[in-house]
Amino acid sequence: MQHFEDFAAGQKFTGSRLRVDTAAIKWFAAQYDPQPFHLDEQAAASSAFGGLAASGWHTAALTMRLIVGSDFRPAGGILGFGGELAWLKPVRPGDELHVEAEILETRLSRSRPGVGIVKLRVTTLNQHGEAVQTFTPALLVPLRPA
Amino acid sequence: MQHFEDFAAGQKFTGSRLRVDTAAIKWFAAQYDPQPFHLDEQAAASSAFGGLAASGWHTAALTMRLIVGSDFRPAGGILGFGGELAWLKPVRPGDELHVEAEILETRLSRSRPGVGIVKLRVTTLNQHGEAVQTFTPALLVPLRPA
Repeated sequence: MQHFEDFAAGQKFTGSRLRVDTAAIKWFAAQYDPQPFHLDEQAAASSAFGGLAASGWHTAALTMRLIVGSDFRPAGGILGFGGELAWLKPVRPGDELHVEAEILETRLSRSRPGVGIVKLRVTTLNQHGEAVQTFTPALLVPLRPA
Repeated sequence: MQHFEDFAAGQKFTGSRLRVDTAAIKWFAAQYDPQPFHLDEQAAASSAFGGLAASGWHTAALTMRLIVGSDFRPAGGILGFGGELAWLKPVRPGDELHVEAEILETRLSRSRPGVGIVKLRVTTLNQHGEAVQTFTPALLVPLRPA
């Protein structure tokens, strides 16, 4: 477990890989994003995606799972206020995703004593090395106990 | 179904309500965000959340479901590049969420003929009227066929 003092801009983290299949794409979409291009191959073929694609929120959720399992392990867990989220390419059935995270900035919190802010850029890549999503969260990380 | 020409800054949209229970919070977390404060009441009590809280990605996914079911119905579906995501308050077991969306800006796409960009602010609120999340996506919306 790492505390605020262990983190610095430029540090990089990575984790395992996760394969996305058709059933998972359709299941997530049915629960949370029931639109034809995430649910049905034929409807997707004539949509802007040109074929079945995962919901962006599915990609985001899988990215979180990959980060939680990565070597970025702040004490107190991975806890953020949000950040800028960008979907760059569709995620297709059979794609295998992994994450590359890099610390952009660290600073002490002005409002909360004992806590620092770590700004991270998390890039989600497919098996071709193409970035499918970026997310730039500000995370709360506790300082090392005195 | 609405086309780009039907949208203008200031228009507001809303939808139904959706209740979040403990089982759903734990299930989502187990799949996508397996951290103790989303999975276990006791661990959550001593975390920064002070009690079981939904993953922010769960809130985001439920927000998408509420938008898809709302009266905001662009032709071609709800299709975005991403945007700024902010989690403002924890979502707790038993919370009932709804969304309020407002168009901030509309403009033609410079790179894609026949397509406009609609910038939306989506606020997710709980049963006390407190905003738990905001998301400000840029969406692709087709122009009305000539």
